[in-house]
Amino acid sequence: MILIVVKVNGNYLKLKAGYLFPEIGRRVKTFTIQNPKASLIRLGIGDVTEPLPKTCCDAMKQAIEEMGTKDGFHGYGPEQGYQWLREKIAKNDYQQKGCEINAEEIFVSDGSKCDSSNFLDILGEGNRIAVTDPVYPVYVDSNVMAGRTGSANNSGCYEGLTYLPITEENGFEAKIPEEKVDLIYLCFPNNPTGAVATKSQLSEWVSYANKNEALILFDAAYEAFIQDEDIPHSIYEIDGAKNCAIEFRSFSKNAGFTGTRCAFTVVPKSLQGITSNQTNIDLWSLWSRRQSTKFNGVNYVVQRGAEAIYSENGQKEVKLLIDFYMENASLIRKQLQLAGYKVFGGENAPYVWIKVPQNMDSWEFFDFLLNNANVVGTPGSGFGSAGEGYFRLSAFNSRENVEEAMSRISNLK
Amino acid sequence: MILIVVKVNGNYLKLKAGYLFPEIGRRVKTFTIQNPKASLIRLGIGDVTEPLPKTCCDAMKQAIEEMGTKDGFHGYGPEQGYQWLREKIAKNDYQQKGCEINAEEIFVSDGSKCDSSNFLDILGEGNRIAVTDPVYPVYVDSNVMAGRTGSANNSGCYEGLTYLPITEENGFEAKIPEEKVDLIYLCFPNNPTGAVATKSQLSEWVSYANKNEALILFDAAYEAFIQDEDIPHSIYEIDGAKNCAIEFRSFSKNAGFTGTRCAFTVVPKSLQGITSNQTNIDLWSLWSRRQSTKFNGVNYVVQRGAEAIYSENGQKEVKLLIDFYMENASLIRKQLQLAGYKVFGGENAPYVWIKVPQNMDSWEFFDFLLNNANVVGTPGSGFGSAGEGYFRLSAFNSRENVEEAMSRISNLK
Repeated sequence: MILIVVKVNGNYLKLKAGYLFPEIGRRVKTFTIQNPKASLIRLGIGDVTEPLPKTCCDAMKQAIEEMGTKDGFHGYGPEQGYQWLREKIAKNDYQQKGCEINAEEIFVSDGSKCDSSNFLDILGEGNRIAVTDPVYPVYVDSNVMAGRTGSANNSGCYEGLTYLPITEENGFEAKIPEEKVDLIYLCFPNNPTGAVATKSQLSEWVSYANKNEALILFDAAYEAFIQDEDIPHSIYEIDGAKNCAIEFRSFSKNAGFTGTRCAFTVVPKSLQGITSNQTNIDLWSLWSRRQSTKFNGVNYVVQRGAEAIYSENGQKEVKLLIDFYMENASLIRKQLQLAGYKVFGGENAPYVWIKVPQNMDSWEFFDFLLNNANVVGTPGSGFGSAGEGYFRLSAFNSRENVEEAMSRISNLK
Repeated sequence: MILIVVKVNGNYLKLKAGYLFPEIGRRVKTFTIQNPKASLIRLGIGDVTEPLPKTCCDAMKQAIEEMGTKDGFHGYGPEQGYQWLREKIAKNDYQQKGCEINAEEIFVSDGSKCDSSNFLDILGEGNRIAVTDPVYPVYVDSNVMAGRTGSANNSGCYEGLTYLPITEENGFEAKIPEEKVDLIYLCFPNNPTGAVATKSQLSEWVSYANKNEALILFDAAYEAFIQDEDIPHSIYEIDGAKNCAIEFRSFSKNAGFTGTRCAFTVVPKSLQGITSNQTNIDLWSLWSRRQSTKFNGVNYVVQRGAEAIYSENGQKEVKLLIDFYMENASLIRKQLQLAGYKVFGGENAPYVWIKVPQNMDSWEFFDFLLNNANVVGTPGSGFGSAGEGYFRLSAFNSRENVEEAMSRISNLK
């Protein structure tokens, strides 16, 4: 048999093991094959569990009715999203909150994971990249795959990346780097630690970025979970951010769209980049072109569903969902503390970040909980070397399951 | 104001003008502003117009009902698609037609445009790339944007690409290149010319690819429109294709999913690639990893809609849609021939490829039809320099509009 040997992207081979969540999936699968009767409770992957809001379902069913008629049928939509949705987003999520973002700067997509990794398409070689450690693995892996890093060392850190530890020691506050970096990934409320950034902390980042001509990629996928009134929901609440930041937002976690797929990215028109031969060009034009050529827009029905989130009933339903998950988070915090664990996060984010008992590492604790409590969590080390010794539990599950999981874990001690 | 100057991908600046369809959109918009009362008929962009099949709508409405319940809710799905859909596809589109493709080799996505351009992520530098001319612009533009070509010359051809003309002179049959190429984009039934490839023609390509260790990217988005029984629907009908070809398929044109977004790509496990430091790796693993890290799967509801296409009623409805559009194509061919135009295609494809009257070029004919018949088509030169002097009309519209458009064009002469 003749095999073809087309040249492929060898950067993929630099990736350490599998992407975190598939690896968890494999371990859980092995466990369930060996223990078919075990009643697993999944607090691992950050996937929501409550039904889609009724308001969204109704809007989507109506949109399907339209699609089934000659006059209501919608074919290809604008690659950047329908104007009516972009306007709703700009008005509700930004303008009403004092951020000067207009509809043209909103790019609707099928997910923040896609956007944050696809955005590398329009960036060039030679940018120094900073990520927090621990960090959402997609930021790092997508850069590795695009050849924007070197190889990984023994602790899994990639050459060419600047890691900013966020640990108990620094109060989970990423320290501003002393050297110049060009790209900075920030995620607040933070996945995985559940930490938030105050206005003054974010202001320091914006100030650093503007001074150092750096671009901040701000992931605000969890902003809906913020409870404290003085924590910013958007980077654009900070003066100067429109000159140095893009922002990723998603309907996955506020309205439960993880299986429905709708998100958006804000790319202000004021952001400028420079090519390797010193031509200036704005990022908005590049991203718009990228999306026009490589993307075909989000399903019409889904965009109608997303629009419905902004209705009065939609907002009420989202609030109920958030409240529900945040009560889960509170319950997890309380029960784990009672059981003697040191916990962080979970107050403005759906993630509780646990200090692992000293005789285990993160994956050992994963296996320990899986085998002894039949509870699935996420090993902190999967998010980076500074996550070693920590463990993430998500608040996304039914009350009953969260209570049962906490009872099982409490009884382990 | 301080502007950030992050390093960006300068390859985008090599792109000639805008992507074809947005450019058409701009010209049409200008026209309609100046002629608000004109009744435009759009036979330009290949977008379907008939309602979604009822079977698909029903399946999707039921899936939304599920999503609104605790037990039926679906969050993140598998990035590669739900197994039940992958199995339906493998069985119906391949195994029942004698092609040995299994469910694991099917990757469900939100569109062939995305897949064909994203696939470059896993390919390396230094592959010699061949495209037909004219060609679907995304193949070329995505390579330009990824830095896999040089700059364009005056006729819009990019350095580093091998162009294979398909014109009246060679019967729209792409000639096998004499030099070695590594990647070959083939689209049959062809967009834009409407030509098809016979089994013996495709066999020659497969034989060339296997002999030259090349990869064929076969776009079969229009296979449902094939009427002649001896024209292959899939590259895998050709012996040896599993060792040298991937295939793009879409539900956009058969079931009218252009606004619903669902497609799939077939990546046989037997395909091998080689990295720049001579490591062998299979393309399936690379693509699977790419999708796991940079994509989050297709909406559950949409996948249920796609599954319904394979039901008995779904198949009947798809056949009615195809028959309807092909009658349009036949009508366009006949009327244009009567009006003195030389026409190609439109017999196994929803596109009719017209020779432009000698005193005009493709864009002039575009403006001529827009201004005088208020009919929107697509200039052949937008698909490549060998498309100059041709014009594409699509069969996607209502019968009434097609008849009216043909009557208007006939009366121009």
